[in-house]
Amino acid sequence: MYEYSRAVFYYETDKMGVVHHSNYLRWMEEARIQYFNETDLAYHETETYGVLSPITEVNIKFKFPARFGDNFTVKMKMTKYTGVRFVINYTIINQNDEVLLEGDSSHAFIDESFKPVSLARIIPERHEKMLALL
Amino acid sequence: MYEYSRAVFYYETDKMGVVHHSNYLRWMEEARIQYFNETDLAYHETETYGVLSPITEVNIKFKFPARFGDNFTVKMKMTKYTGVRFVINYTIINQNDEVLLEGDSSHAFIDESFKPVSLARIIPERHEKMLALL
Amino acid sequence: MYEYSRAVFYYETDKMGVVHHSNYLRWMEEARIQYFNETDLAYHETETYGVLSPITEVNIKFKFPARFGDNFTVKMKMTKYTGVRFVINYTIINQNDEVLLEGDSSHAFIDESFKPVSLARIIPERHEKMLALL
Amino acid sequence: MYEYSRAVFYYETDKMGVVHHSNYLRWMEEARIQYFNETDLAYHETETYGVLSPITEVNIKFKFPARFGDNFTVKMKMTKYTGVRFVINYTIINQNDEVLLEGDSSHAFIDESFKPVSLARIIPERHEKMLALL
Repeated sequence: MYEYSRAVFYYETDKMGVVHHSNYLRWMEEARIQYFNETDLAYHETETYGVLSPITEVNIKFKFPARFGDNFTVKMKMTKYTGVRFVINYTIINQNDEVLLEGDSSHAFIDESFKPVSLARIIPERHEKMLALL
Repeated sequence: MYEYSRAVFYYETDKMGVVHHSNYLRWMEEARIQYFNETDLAYHETETYGVLSPITEVNIKFKFPARFGDNFTVKMKMTKYTGVRFVINYTIINQNDEVLLEGDSSHAFIDESFKPVSLARIIPERHEKMLALL
Repeated sequence: MYEYSRAVFYYETDKMGVVHHSNYLRWMEEARIQYFNETDLAYHETETYGVLSPITEVNIKFKFPARFGDNFTVKMKMTKYTGVRFVINYTIINQNDEVLLEGDSSHAFIDESFKPVSLARIIPERHEKMLALL
Repeated sequence: MYEYSRAVFYYETDKMGVVHHSNYLRWMEEARIQYFNETDLAYHETETYGVLSPITEVNIKFKFPARFGDNFTVKMKMTKYTGVRFVINYTIINQNDEVLLEGDSSHAFIDESFKPVSLARIIPERHEKMLALL
């Protein structure tokens, strides 16, 4: 289980007084990117190979609002990796251990013309590292 | 089937050259709000009753990237309404009828202390209008 | 004087109940892009020449808050164009003619390696069109 | 001179491959808020008194683009405080000490009906702390 934390930013709130739901997708991305940075699979390096990994699916259940003044922690783990796609599960909690949301995202690998590619074939050493994360 | 369209904004793109996926949640919200405006169920009026309708769940399959220069159309319909919650289905297409995404969002009604409320009980005339949309 | 209008989006507000100030830069960009679209100087065409026009300076005085439920109009005009840079002045008002802000932005032309270029030299026919806007 | 640092987020970039300029206003806000948190002048506490401090003016010169993979540092100091308004100067640099931007923002104090108020009169102990920051 990997964890990523930071404070809620003021500009992430909306007039309801809580964090706008679109920002949770951004927090999930922040966590994912730091996770891959720290496992020697950094996005900005993968992109130098001409390989991108866009999101293909997301499912989220929103449980409790996040507010300005809160700190959040994204708890995430990769639950599936096939060489051509991967799935990550997320639970986001606040500083009081209240669950803000539960969700998952699916990702593919594509080249710069947006054609699906196999990470296993294109960058075998990164494929090995992905397998090791499971 | 209700439709909402506009051009993609430059600032909605990311370094992949396509619209960042978090913006699709915002497009769905824009469509939803205009839909309720045009059916005499405007959010900013509902909020004067102290009733908010936050998102409780979202599921999206991303099919095709949107780009700067594109126009998108959100096609949406309310598929469920129970008096205490509602579900909306979305298909977003571009100007070439390519499907950008398919998804749904679920929403509850809450009061200003974030307690669930029944629209049917709190604002009966809005409840009737919601029923009429099904 | 060119005008660009739309409704305020819910997600543009913050917990103060008004539009977050960072969004005004986005509204100015939306207006600028539609202006250049309608004067046959579309950004997405200019970018096919490998020419980008980043912002180099912005100055804004915020006068009155915009709220969800409002419609805003950006009134803008190009006040300077030298072949290598241009300046645009903006006044943004709401549906009651209240002035939300006054400001200006300056822009340069650069190539894809972010070196300054002269539009006059690189795309002479666009240079002529820019001159005609003054 | 106060300093605030973090990594650039992927979703902050645009199709030009660099950070969209609207995000710099958000970075300046992040820095400002953390600065006031650490000087015992936290925004979320000030707001419990019904006092808000909206931005009234901003001036920025953009010098160099920020990119995904970069870390930025906002260097800021309060250069003016009058009891009813304050001004902050910012220089943002990247991990190579390249200056990304220079700018300033001005802020007023208002009550919840958006009327200007004097911090000196409304929350004298916060006024003293603000003076001490100069």
